[in-house]
This record gives sequence, structure tokens and C-alpha cells, in this order.
Amino acid sequence: MKTITTIREMGEWVQEAKKGGRSIGLVPTMGFLHEGHISLVERAKAENDHVVMSIFVNPAQFGPNEDFDRYPRDLERDSELAEAAGTEVIFAPSVEEMYPRQSAISMSAGPLADVLCGAKRPGHFDGVLKVVTKLFHIIQPARAYFGQKDAQQLAIIESLVEDFNFPLTIRRGETVREADGLAKSSRNVYLSEAERVEAPHLQKALQLGKVAALAGEDPIAPMKAYLEERVSGKIDYIDLLSYPSLTEQIEEEAILALAVQFEKARLIDNLIFNMKGKN
Amino acid sequence: MKTITTIREMGEWVQEAKKGGRSIGLVPTMGFLHEGHISLVERAKAENDHVVMSIFVNPAQFGPNEDFDRYPRDLERDSELAEAAGTEVIFAPSVEEMYPRQSAISMSAGPLADVLCGAKRPGHFDGVLKVVTKLFHIIQPARAYFGQKDAQQLAIIESLVEDFNFPLTIRRGETVREADGLAKSSRNVYLSEAERVEAPHLQKALQLGKVAALAGEDPIAPMKAYLEERVSGKIDYIDLLSYPSLTEQIEEEAILALAVQFEKARLIDNLIFNMKGKN
Repeated sequence: MKTITTIREMGEWVQEAKKGGRSIGLVPTMGFLHEGHISLVERAKAENDHVVMSIFVNPAQFGPNEDFDRYPRDLERDSELAEAAGTEVIFAPSVEEMYPRQSAISMSAGPLADVLCGAKRPGHFDGVLKVVTKLFHIIQPARAYFGQKDAQQLAIIESLVEDFNFPLTIRRGETVREADGLAKSSRNVYLSEAERVEAPHLQKALQLGKVAALAGEDPIAPMKAYLEERVSGKIDYIDLLSYPSLTEQIEEEAILALAVQFEKARLIDNLIFNMKGKN
Repeated sequence: MKTITTIREMGEWVQEAKKGGRSIGLVPTMGFLHEGHISLVERAKAENDHVVMSIFVNPAQFGPNEDFDRYPRDLERDSELAEAAGTEVIFAPSVEEMYPRQSAISMSAGPLADVLCGAKRPGHFDGVLKVVTKLFHIIQPARAYFGQKDAQQLAIIESLVEDFNFPLTIRRGETVREADGLAKSSRNVYLSEAERVEAPHLQKALQLGKVAALAGEDPIAPMKAYLEERVSGKIDYIDLLSYPSLTEQIEEEAILALAVQFEKARLIDNLIFNMKGKN
């Protein structure tokens, strides 16, 4: 496996790799890999001639009071995991390499960022759009892989690709969970022991809410009550919206999503399901 | 020459055309071609294996009170001119093909659009960014050609390509002029006979202003006086800025630009030069 840190070298590798119509699968990550990332790599390997993983903790998607500086990083461990899963190249540029100057031009996720995490993290998804657009141009994948755990990000990137005609396909990866139901996340390392015991209740609350929603009842209030009894963290939001359009007019596909702020870890989770009970 | 109207067919042609590493040169236009466009096609032909011209009057870059509906269109004449100059494919999609739905995601040119034409045409360059990004993704050129007459557009697109790492190069085409100095423009057909006689004074005013600027004098006031005596149109702006950064801190490259609103035609022109007299 090769680790590339400059845009120029990455571009040269891409030119060579795509010769003869060969395809690249891209798994964009912020590193500190877990089984969720690995499952995306395995799928990318099955569907493409080459697999590139980007590892870049993107400052543009962190707010001033968020955890950019202390976001967990371990490139050595990540490299071992990525290689074992079949990654051919890790693209791990520095912040200066990705953002050599202040850009005049910006992208905005618009109303898609006014709900769920976007409402609580102003500018977050604009920063995601910027880095994802840059990565797509640098690596030119045929397919890019994103996990459903970050469902709002996934919806916004699907919209980006469709509305701006990127010549690639977005693949959704199912959320990978611990045995007790907690969604795998790089931020789970921030949890205290006591919080780690409480954390699986997020998924349980979602399951309970889904049953209510499918029965035509309000899922929010019972989920709130359930969580307030069982977790020490503060509920940031619980919401039921259409998916991937993220509006209150739900026709078929819906997302039930929540965020809970623990002492050091802000955890998110969601379920996506058909409101007519088709899946 | 082939005319393609759907994104799907264009994508299939591109896939085929790029095989074996062959390059595409793109000349994006709004049609109603003049010698400025033709000179871009000729250059694209000399530098690439394939030449594609897009012809699309982009509603996203017209304001509500601007000339979208009456913008001159003549696809038959354009096709003849484009083919004679060496165009291999014209991409001429409908508005519905390019914008099948309202997009949640937007791009903003930021401070680069706060000056010159951008200050007078709110949203114009955001619409340019959107359509150019889409065209770059659909046609995947190695090089794209833009005329210097639309100098602010050129600066913004150069910034877009650099800051978002598009895998292509922007080529600047010099402004092509009538014998009397008037910059070629599709909008020149809007001029009355009397206005057509006055219009070359825009270029003369710029020449006069350049002499003043290089002598360290203010170019704006004498240009204003010169034009007010000679043209019936209303001066929209006259400005001297750095190029391509479009700020008031001029180090070397500068742009002296103006816009004049005649009865039906809004004409723009500019000179780009080195303030230290190097070119």
C-alpha cells in the first residue's frame, strides 16, 4: 500500500490508474478507522479496479468550539487496518496542502443543512461539500462510499452529485454496530465507562420510535422520555423527516434521527425506513 | 459535426472520446457566435484531440429584469460557424435537461462578485459557477476556453478551478474586436445605429485610462468625462482593480474595466495590464 500526501502526486497516480478505463473506488474518511470504514473499503474493493482511502481531518467542517484539535488521529494504526482491508492508496494530505489559501468561492448546502445536525453545527455541511468536491476532483472515483450513520451528510452529498452532475456514483454503506447496538464511531473513544454503558440506548430509542412512527403515532415524545430516564447526556435533537430530501413532508422513505451530547462525545444515530412499512 | 442535447448521451460520447488518454477542449458559450468564440475554438482545436462547444443560455445567470428571454439565439447559424472552425460536438441541452429540479445546494463567488458586474448583477456569478461546474463534470475537458472580455467571469472560474482542484486547465482568450475597436459581443446586435457609432469610445476610454494609470494618475475621472461627452449610454461602472484577485490592492497585474448601459444593450470591456509597465 502507498501513502500519498500531495495533490500533485495523487493526480499523477490517478492518471496512471485510470488508463484503459479502470475504475477507482474512493472511501473518504477522517481516519481513526473502525469497522464501518472497513466495510466500505471491502465493498469498494469488490466493485472497482482500485481502492483509494482519503484520511483528512477537515478543519472546514468543524466549528470554532468543536473538537478539531482533539479529534482522534492514528495514521499508523489506520494504515494497517486500511491495507488489511484491501486499500491500495491512502491519500493523507496536510491542511496546508488542501487549503493553501483562503478561498473566495464557497458552497452552501442550503435548506438541507437547516435541520438535524446542520441546525446545531452552522457551516459544518458547507465544509463537507468543499472537501468532498475537492477529493472527487483530485481522485476522480467512479464510485464513492459513505456510511449511513452520517445520514444527513450522505443525503447532501447525493444531492451534490446529482445537481452538479459529478461523473460518479455514491454508494450507501449500512451502519456497522457494536454487539450491543451502539453505532461504531471514531468519537466513541471520548465516552466515559458509564456513558459507554448508556450509549446503546440511543439505538433502542430509535427502534422504539420507529414502531410508534409506523403505527402513525408521534415517535418523538416517547423517545425523549425513554432517553431522559436512561442517559446522562443531553438530547440535542430527535427528528422524523423525509429521506433523502430532509423535509417534514414524508411520502415513503423517512429518517428518524437523534443526537445526544455526552460530556466529551456528541453521538448521532438514525434509522431510515419506509413509512408505508415496505422495508 | 454532432449535436447532442442530453446529458446522458454527452456522457457516453465523453467516455468514448477520452479512451486512450485523448483530451477534450471545451468552449462554453451562450451561442450567437462571433469571432471571439471562433478564436477560442481554433485554439482548442490546436491544443486537444477533441473540441466540444456548449451552447446554453443559462437562466441561472440572468437576473429577473435581465435579457434571458430576448437573448439572441440562432442554433442553425451557430452550428455552421462552429463546424467550420473545427468543433466536433455541440452540446445544446434544454433548460429542463440542465435544471430538472430546484437544487438545494448553491455556490457563491463571494467577494469576487462584490465588484464590477457582480455588484450590478446580484447572483449572476453564482449562476455562472453552477453551470460551469455542471459543464465541467458532464464534458470532462482537459482544457476550457474563456474570453478575456468577460474578465470577471474568467477570474472567478480560474479561482473555482484552483480552489476546488478541478482536473483541467483554464485558457484565457484575448478579446477579439471590430476594426474600430468595439469588443465583439453577442449583445452588439441590440445597439441602434447611432449607438453602434458611439460604442468604440468604450475601448478608447480604456486606452486613455490605462495611460493615466501607468503614469500614477487616477484614470476614472478622465474616462468618465471622456465617455459622458461621447456616448448616449449611461456609465454603469468604471473601475481599476488587481487581477485576477479583483481587490483594490494592486501589486502588478491590474484590470481597468467598464460597463455602459445603452438603450437595449449593456456593453462591457476591459484592459488587463501590468501596473509596473512590464507588458
